Amino acid sequence: MSSEEIARKRLNAIQQQLTRSTGPADLSRERANASFDVNQMKTFFAGGKEFSEAMDDAYRFIQRDPELYLGDEYIFDASVTEQREATMRQLRRYVEVRDMLKSSLLVRAFHDAMCQYSEAFSMRLYVHEILFPQALRLFGTSEQYSEWIDDLLSWRIIGCFAMTELGYSSFLRGLETTATFDKKADEFIINSPSILSTKWWVGMAGETATHTIVLAQTVVDGKKCGIDWFVVPLRSRKTGRLVAGVAAGNIGTKYGRNGLDNGWIQFSGIRIPRTNMMMRWASVSPDGKYHPSPNPALSYAPLIGERLEVIRATISTASRALTIACRYGCVRRQGANNEQIMDFQSYYVQLMPGIAGLYVANIIDRITGSKWNKLVDNVDDGTLFLNNIADIHGISAGLKSIYGWWGVDILEFCRRSLGGHAYSSYNAIGEFIQDFSPITTGGGDNYTLMNQAAKYVLGSLKMASNGIKLEGSVAYLNNIQEALSRSNSSMASENEILDLNFITGALAWLSIRKAKAIETTLSGGGVAVWNDNIVHLIKLAEIHTHHYILSEYHNDLVEYGSTEYKDLLPMLTQMGQLWGTYVMQSLLELFLEEGYFSPSQAKMVKKVFYDLCRKTRKEVIPLVDAWAVPDFILKAPLGRYDGDIYPAYFNRVRNTPGCVGVPSYWSKYIKPMTDPDS
Amino acid sequence: MSSEEIARKRLNAIQQQLTRSTGPADLSRERANASFDVNQMKTFFAGGKEFSEAMDDAYRFIQRDPELYLGDEYIFDASVTEQREATMRQLRRYVEVRDMLKSSLLVRAFHDAMCQYSEAFSMRLYVHEILFPQALRLFGTSEQYSEWIDDLLSWRIIGCFAMTELGYSSFLRGLETTATFDKKADEFIINSPSILSTKWWVGMAGETATHTIVLAQTVVDGKKCGIDWFVVPLRSRKTGRLVAGVAAGNIGTKYGRNGLDNGWIQFSGIRIPRTNMMMRWASVSPDGKYHPSPNPALSYAPLIGERLEVIRATISTASRALTIACRYGCVRRQGANNEQIMDFQSYYVQLMPGIAGLYVANIIDRITGSKWNKLVDNVDDGTLFLNNIADIHGISAGLKSIYGWWGVDILEFCRRSLGGHAYSSYNAIGEFIQDFSPITTGGGDNYTLMNQAAKYVLGSLKMASNGIKLEGSVAYLNNIQEALSRSNSSMASENEILDLNFITGALAWLSIRKAKAIETTLSGGGVAVWNDNIVHLIKLAEIHTHHYILSEYHNDLVEYGSTEYKDLLPMLTQMGQLWGTYVMQSLLELFLEEGYFSPSQAKMVKKVFYDLCRKTRKEVIPLVDAWAVPDFILKAPLGRYDGDIYPAYFNRVRNTPGCVGVPSYWSKYIKPMTDPDS
Repeated sequence: MSSEEIARKRLNAIQQQLTRSTGPADLSRERANASFDVNQMKTFFAGGKEFSEAMDDAYRFIQRDPELYLGDEYIFDASVTEQREATMRQLRRYVEVRDMLKSSLLVRAFHDAMCQYSEAFSMRLYVHEILFPQALRLFGTSEQYSEWIDDLLSWRIIGCFAMTELGYSSFLRGLETTATFDKKADEFIINSPSILSTKWWVGMAGETATHTIVLAQTVVDGKKCGIDWFVVPLRSRKTGRLVAGVAAGNIGTKYGRNGLDNGWIQFSGIRIPRTNMMMRWASVSPDGKYHPSPNPALSYAPLIGERLEVIRATISTASRALTIACRYGCVRRQGANNEQIMDFQSYYVQLMPGIAGLYVANIIDRITGSKWNKLVDNVDDGTLFLNNIADIHGISAGLKSIYGWWGVDILEFCRRSLGGHAYSSYNAIGEFIQDFSPITTGGGDNYTLMNQAAKYVLGSLKMASNGIKLEGSVAYLNNIQEALSRSNSSMASENEILDLNFITGALAWLSIRKAKAIETTLSGGGVAVWNDNIVHLIKLAEIHTHHYILSEYHNDLVEYGSTEYKDLLPMLTQMGQLWGTYVMQSLLELFLEEGYFSPSQAKMVKKVFYDLCRKTRKEVIPLVDAWAVPDFILKAPLGRYDGDIYPAYFNRVRNTPGCVGVPSYWSKYIKPMTDPDS
Repeated sequence: MSSEEIARKRLNAIQQQLTRSTGPADLSRERANASFDVNQMKTFFAGGKEFSEAMDDAYRFIQRDPELYLGDEYIFDASVTEQREATMRQLRRYVEVRDMLKSSLLVRAFHDAMCQYSEAFSMRLYVHEILFPQALRLFGTSEQYSEWIDDLLSWRIIGCFAMTELGYSSFLRGLETTATFDKKADEFIINSPSILSTKWWVGMAGETATHTIVLAQTVVDGKKCGIDWFVVPLRSRKTGRLVAGVAAGNIGTKYGRNGLDNGWIQFSGIRIPRTNMMMRWASVSPDGKYHPSPNPALSYAPLIGERLEVIRATISTASRALTIACRYGCVRRQGANNEQIMDFQSYYVQLMPGIAGLYVANIIDRITGSKWNKLVDNVDDGTLFLNNIADIHGISAGLKSIYGWWGVDILEFCRRSLGGHAYSSYNAIGEFIQDFSPITTGGGDNYTLMNQAAKYVLGSLKMASNGIKLEGSVAYLNNIQEALSRSNSSMASENEILDLNFITGALAWLSIRKAKAIETTLSGGGVAVWNDNIVHLIKLAEIHTHHYILSEYHNDLVEYGSTEYKDLLPMLTQMGQLWGTYVMQSLLELFLEEGYFSPSQAKMVKKVFYDLCRKTRKEVIPLVDAWAVPDFILKAPLGRYDGDIYPAYFNRVRNTPGCVGVPSYWSKYIKPMTDPDS
């Protein structure tokens, strides 16, 4: 035992005597288990030393600034109105602070830290600074983009994004809002013909936005010619009152993100100049001629970016929930031997793959995000954009659904991991669940997206069958003949399972087999047959997407061997193995059903998975520490870095206004019963 | 086509033209699909004609009474304080109304309807009228019970149930609160020695209760001798102020049930008479002699009733969520052919087993509830009670976990089924999720309970192996030798799968196999080996409990053949088949891994399950209609009985105070940005 270890043990012993709280000692013992440099991992996870330090600065800035910081006593007891006001207060301050900051790195860190701090803030900012401008960029000409962008970035106008209608969401061709061209006036008339056509869920439309970009049916000479985007004013910049011809308001109290003013909009014949139609792809000329887009699916392109954002949202939320659950799991003790509950298999078998999944997702987010950003930056090269849009659309649809659903699962598991204590709002996980869950149905419903991803795989398979060489996420389908000729796995030892090539190979095999079987089932059938096989289609999209995730992660890992991160490789490899075996064991039923694995091989896969969970459990605290989420962002006393959770939790409750005292309704409703004779 | 059908078609066509809302026509068409008498099914589900009519009366009463009815405009926008007050207002009124009602049937219906209307009301009432009195009944002598019960039932005192501590929940032996006997004074001194020993989550302790029944370590002559129950005063019945020696307060804002005042309690040496110790099983005599309980596990007995209540809670909540989701699914249209989304396999494959599961649960609730009530009613016959406690404990542990987890899954699926619209609080499902989810960790954490259920199965298996004949839920283990000698299923046709005997037989086989395998793994190992196999133990408890559910359901069905419900048998049998195949396909991986099913048999099971889902989907609306939940209890415009959902939803939003208008923070935070020069 080293002298340092002896000192630590003594310190722990004293600490335990003094406070009866074993938490701090537990966590410091857990921290000593790290096989890797936690600071280096923190740097890696953040994407570089400079950015990691900038994040630290940004966190510090937020916690100090009284207009940004929400205050412990406030956040979970605030009314909807108070939350709205606080979020807008943060936004205004955010714009001021950003203008002050000189370093673009610091601006980005400040942005990321604030978004992690508040989902409502994050969505408000996203709508205005990403969704609206990206739509301008993708659908407007360069001139149109220039016309609006300065006012937007300075917040002289506030934008929102009006796509979904009350009666139509994922099926955009059903949209009812019309933009009718009036040639004489050189204007479009925007109209909502029914209740169902009311624009719905539009973030910032409830109270804030001065302008919106609207998706509508373009009508020329009484004929619907296409679905296009139009910029329409909503409110006076001076007074906040609605422009004539626009009705808009709040959607009201929501299951999550109540600081965001989701709203509805009804247009009643408001007129806008013809040039407010975004004309990069489709256009209407002054003489009333409609020039269609080369690819009508382009209208949905902004959603690709939104969908890829779900990866980051999952990392942001799940990393907080997992940090809280894992620290609590190492401090909480229960059972005959007073065990740490983290040592129960039911806990670590769920929490460890969660952690591994986030390490993998972090890489996937970087890789896929940069693919998309490259396309957006080069949108003026129409060919490049159009050639790549199908693959990135397929990828984004699959990733959004996989990570959205998985995020909900992880959060629910973290909730259960706190025993009853997630029932208290002050332990934050309840709010995480509410803020995150709508992701599975918003921005393209996951079921619909998985259908689209499956359609893309099936279409690609057909091309591959016809000998066309595929690129991108579907390239593995080029091996269709080899896969169809192989009927089972020759895997004979546990070691083989740890090879990521083995796992991606198995997933590729399963995807091809499943796709081929579905192709046969669907052939000749119409929409009804498709509808009766959606469960299988979703499964196909799931396998395909998992293949993409693991292949990309694996390819990326190889590159770190020669960088400053090479010492992290063993742990990063373990994370890939854990995630890979987690995915494989979740698909075991299919592997068995298709005869790829024998029962004994299946048991082997499971054993390797469980073993990896137990093995990595030892480093659970270093692994979550490396995400470096400060306590004030976690918002949960049970997730405290120092492990001294109980006094903090009790004080949080005790200091809440209204904690003690006779309730206002005592004399009205209780006393008449308990003291009937007085 | 019959003339009735022609008339209906014409009516539908006209209706569609007038309103553009196809919902009413869709639902009436769906209703015409019923192969059974919906009213008869309603009667059956309610448990009889008289009670079904009493429920209708009770619903009407509630909706008319302004102190009971919450009002559409109110419920989802109320603050925590407003919710607390409204719930207590309802409680006071409830007591008055109950005293007025003459029929005990109507009282029960009124109770059930109110509990369905508000979870917070339900829990407040449950704590006071069931949890506290049942503890008195189970642990107090008859004299002690008589001493308190009148004051309790008349609400002259208000009770709560103080078991869980901040640091200890499922592991009760770890509890720290002490009840120290002072022989001279013939009193107990109740003390909370640390922060961790603070009683936590106690419903009604936050603001309301005047008395509590406390689980504490009994200390006599400086020695801890057992864990017993003590009645302790908390607040003045006249003023609501805390009794000296008691600190108590609110736990604060929660993830759900905010109308309930969950609280914390710290005892600082408060003295109670010796006779406030509940002395049915254990007792302390005036001379300071401790007489231990014949079975220390008896202390947890009240939780058995609480756990069985989870079945009813699942039915209550899931029936509402499923009604909303299924009606919406039949009204909402999407896709190229404007399909009802209910026709998408991804929907009906999740919603139909949910419906079947509730029909099954309804029977299980009745059967198991009456087993438990019989024991409680005969508690004075100590032998009967002690002989049956182990089996009912095992059953309740399994059922509580299975239904709790499954309920969360169903609610989450219903949330997703509303597309984005569950994001609006006004569609109720968000609140259902919050109100229900804590069930999985409260009243005995599900993981802990499943460990206990598995332990019971393993212990029973050992007895069966030694030739002891078992009764109750584990009786199937008597066939251990036959099961171990059979290595796979001979099932050859889809028809065999529809036989519930086949399904229960397969579950029994799997349970025995799994139990035997676990027994081998655990043998000789200590706590650490147990902890590393919890996932398998939980799976065992799950299979065992599913076997109980399906066997009991099957046995019960047989009896209806000769009753007034015989015409319902075909549908009730289908519900059993659908639930049975749902359970079996969810366990396919294990059946394949153990070699019980071959890959082709497994595919057959799945096919039968999917076919049943599609077949029963035709009657989805009649099946949920039979639960007869009125619109005002559903609280969700999207779940309206008449299907005219969109205007109701829009009006609900539009009529909420604050829906439109310039927000209070405009001039403070927005105008300075949008109108910087003014």
